[in-house]
Amino acid sequence: MSEPDAVLRLLLDGRPRTRAELIDSSGLARSTVTGRIESLLATGLVVPSGEAASTGGRPPARFRLNPAARLILAADVGATHLSVALTDLTGEIVARSTTPLNIAEGPEIVLAEVVRTGRSLLKTAGRSLKDLAGTGVGLPGPVEHSTGRPNHPPIMPGWDSYDVAGRLSRELPGPVLVDNDVNIMALGEHATEYADVEHLLFVKVATGIGAGVISGGRLHRGAQGAAGDIGHIQTPGHTELCRCGNVGCLEAVASAAAIAARLNVSGSHDIIDLVRSGNTAATTAVRQAGREIGTVLAAAVSLLNPSVLVIGGSLSQAGDHLLAGIRETVYARSLPLATTGLHVTTTRSPYDAALRGAAILVQQHVLVTPS
Amino acid sequence: MSEPDAVLRLLLDGRPRTRAELIDSSGLARSTVTGRIESLLATGLVVPSGEAASTGGRPPARFRLNPAARLILAADVGATHLSVALTDLTGEIVARSTTPLNIAEGPEIVLAEVVRTGRSLLKTAGRSLKDLAGTGVGLPGPVEHSTGRPNHPPIMPGWDSYDVAGRLSRELPGPVLVDNDVNIMALGEHATEYADVEHLLFVKVATGIGAGVISGGRLHRGAQGAAGDIGHIQTPGHTELCRCGNVGCLEAVASAAAIAARLNVSGSHDIIDLVRSGNTAATTAVRQAGREIGTVLAAAVSLLNPSVLVIGGSLSQAGDHLLAGIRETVYARSLPLATTGLHVTTTRSPYDAALRGAAILVQQHVLVTPS
Repeated sequence: MSEPDAVLRLLLDGRPRTRAELIDSSGLARSTVTGRIESLLATGLVVPSGEAASTGGRPPARFRLNPAARLILAADVGATHLSVALTDLTGEIVARSTTPLNIAEGPEIVLAEVVRTGRSLLKTAGRSLKDLAGTGVGLPGPVEHSTGRPNHPPIMPGWDSYDVAGRLSRELPGPVLVDNDVNIMALGEHATEYADVEHLLFVKVATGIGAGVISGGRLHRGAQGAAGDIGHIQTPGHTELCRCGNVGCLEAVASAAAIAARLNVSGSHDIIDLVRSGNTAATTAVRQAGREIGTVLAAAVSLLNPSVLVIGGSLSQAGDHLLAGIRETVYARSLPLATTGLHVTTTRSPYDAALRGAAILVQQHVLVTPS
Repeated sequence: MSEPDAVLRLLLDGRPRTRAELIDSSGLARSTVTGRIESLLATGLVVPSGEAASTGGRPPARFRLNPAARLILAADVGATHLSVALTDLTGEIVARSTTPLNIAEGPEIVLAEVVRTGRSLLKTAGRSLKDLAGTGVGLPGPVEHSTGRPNHPPIMPGWDSYDVAGRLSRELPGPVLVDNDVNIMALGEHATEYADVEHLLFVKVATGIGAGVISGGRLHRGAQGAAGDIGHIQTPGHTELCRCGNVGCLEAVASAAAIAARLNVSGSHDIIDLVRSGNTAATTAVRQAGREIGTVLAAAVSLLNPSVLVIGGSLSQAGDHLLAGIRETVYARSLPLATTGLHVTTTRSPYDAALRGAAILVQQHVLVTPS
């Protein structure tokens, strides 16, 4: 029940506050708040921000968060690319870099590249390693939350149980937080676009299919950090063999990989090009994939009753056909109460959500939990 | 961020604490804690509980929750029965009554019976209305959480949008909290048997089928309070017509009502009798229903990664056949990470979970939120 960082948490919204306001809003003892402000001023995380109007006597000083005091290193490791960014303490991106990199190169090579790019971005920004508050990493596979290690990731040879945080901590200061890419996309989309929404479901449709669940404003990771793994839910009426060994998995039926195989092209970029050129087979395939995904999402809507359902991932950029198919099935198969006010939409930040979410992981760990 | 009831929340575990311990654990100012203890002593909610060992000088007084200070009225309104109980502030049942009552009699008759039974239980216990801290009610249909009103409940003619809380508040003191029966069963089972479990899914299999979702230790109600409504998720390979107007809904395929119709008997009691007498058709039907329910629960396990999956409701009492069918499909259709440590089991409190959950609704409202 102890709340040592209630002061910092209150200041996260950017609004300056007086000592009296912080005592009042936190319910903490005057001495606790005063001590906390002093140590935050000493680290530079909080700065003085003018004075409030006087009510007689010396006008009270106000304090605010200093978002630029420290930087967060955010890495989004994809199947075939690596994106690295520096953000401020609010998760705002200040510098970024994206480079092709095959995850099958293995953790040593990929994580060395994360460190190298991070150092390079810091140098360009005129900052140094000691300015880092921490590092957040998203990986394209299941991550066991308690250990931060990949757990039998299907497309990440050499990464199973690898100590990602330990490896990066050898070269980077501050905590290293690791999660799967869909969870960090959900965190980023929620923090950036839907901060006031309590219940949100983020669905990534790309080479694979996965979801991130925001429940009560917080990321729902589940007991082993495996929540949101909807790619292997059975799609009614399908028997396609999946790489997981089961049949009829949503991912084997409706992912970009499945559609690409059916259209005899190589991936989501080709599918998007075909759809944009008006190819009927591609348009039909994407819309039908939307319907299949919609069947599984209708079940998720019945179970969770979110108010926002965000479709992201590379295939979400294939015009409105995917979204149309999803909407068609979700509205047909969910009860009226659960779709009252349900907003089904495409991601608003297709390129930044993952990096911002990786930064939010660190922000929540550093600023909100006891140091 | 203000925490006016942190003191009471700390004492909910029953352990006596000194003023210094309460200040320490809550992080609140000494004056805040002292004032709160004084007002709690005045209401009788907290009582002195001896003294701690002295460390020199006067030994410090200790305080503990007095669970019997106030009573909670808990009502579980079923399709064909009404159960009413008095509990203490921890949700422990001190008196109860169950009577046959058809919910189709309508809200006026059913709620008048809740009040009459409540008064009668109070009288027998030698207590009066002024001892009531509040009333919790579970209803067998969707309830809009923000208003506490039933929302198009399919088996509750005359109840749609009825102001249940307003009606009861005319005759009963304290807040009246209303939720659907599955949510209160989940709350009761969680509080009673799995208080330390973060992620739990409670599934009721009876005339209908529904679920209660515990996420991060709290009930996940969703945006409109409709979360857990799994009875109308499509069951792969089925086209049975459901009373909701859709086809292939889980409830139309695997509920006690669906099985009873197939076996040409009248309900779950008959099914249980047949299963216990060794009837092969009944045993086979219950096991197959378990498999169909398991298909939907496998999807829920993939999405939420709970550590406990509890099967309750009348059909859960039909031996182990239902559970066996559910386990078979859940383990076959979920990824290994999500079933590592997943415990699939039958309710431990088939008769009390709903009443205890209705009491927990009130306890959480009265003791944990600002008064």
